[in-house]
Amino acid sequence: MGLFSKDLKSMEDLHLHVLQDIYYAEHQIKKALPDMIEKAANRELADAFRTHLGETEKQIGRLEECFRLLGKDPKGVTCPAIDGIIKEADDIAGESEEKVIDAALVAAAQAVEHYEITRYGSLIAWSKELGLDSVAQLLKTTLEEEKATDRKLTEIGEQKVNLMAAG
Amino acid sequence: MGLFSKDLKSMEDLHLHVLQDIYYAEHQIKKALPDMIEKAANRELADAFRTHLGETEKQIGRLEECFRLLGKDPKGVTCPAIDGIIKEADDIAGESEEKVIDAALVAAAQAVEHYEITRYGSLIAWSKELGLDSVAQLLKTTLEEEKATDRKLTEIGEQKVNLMAAG
Repeated sequence: MGLFSKDLKSMEDLHLHVLQDIYYAEHQIKKALPDMIEKAANRELADAFRTHLGETEKQIGRLEECFRLLGKDPKGVTCPAIDGIIKEADDIAGESEEKVIDAALVAAAQAVEHYEITRYGSLIAWSKELGLDSVAQLLKTTLEEEKATDRKLTEIGEQKVNLMAAG
Repeated sequence: MGLFSKDLKSMEDLHLHVLQDIYYAEHQIKKALPDMIEKAANRELADAFRTHLGETEKQIGRLEECFRLLGKDPKGVTCPAIDGIIKEADDIAGESEEKVIDAALVAAAQAVEHYEITRYGSLIAWSKELGLDSVAQLLKTTLEEEKATDRKLTEIGEQKVNLMAAG
């Protein structure tokens, strides 16, 4: 992710860099979700992915608003962490039992959500410290959505997919 | 991470594979922490990393107990996700302000913790479904430690590091 290159001298640099990191990540997630929707056998899981795709598009818009508030052009920076996490979802093969695939999809999606939760958490804390309250507020709306998605996936995973997969 | 290779036909296969994934991850974290301890300027942050290094060693022991309960030899599988996440911590350069480095270290460590939280969460749900209650119990002890570490890092990040870094 290059979080720690020589160019990051100040908190402002670090804040902007992680904003670019999560902007890249949201775009990768947007690209990955249609395939995950297609692979999901459980209808509730597919619906949750579909809802999250719509949310992801809004979250990208919120990040663009954050860049605007900072007087910067929206730009992403490659992040090996999210690339690795999303690769799991991409690699899901159609050779396993449908229910095993669904359980694996839930796990992959929750790894994505937790990455976003931790990045938005750091960004919100730094935004507040830097007095960027409007930015913090926008990111907080997104963080709450990510947490809600994670809870929804836990619920689907525990109540539907795993029961079927182990049954 | 290869979560979804052709060999993963059943929930038992998926469960074992993710256990191997997190076993690999814990070893990588154990290798990364001494360097993070050295880079941390804030004493409370260095202490938190030191405590977590001790916990990580116990967590590896608990995973080995899980493998034993499953009648399997402890084995790791390479996981690009955790490699990408840890790379961030490894890349932290000494060129930035100490306080910016500490803020970046907190963010990198929290990304690691969230990866572990999501993986242990999936494993516990699947262990229960598979009737592996002793395995679930061992993993739950570790999950609680990871969550406590994440909370501690949030506290340090918000109260110490960020205040100094932005100040």
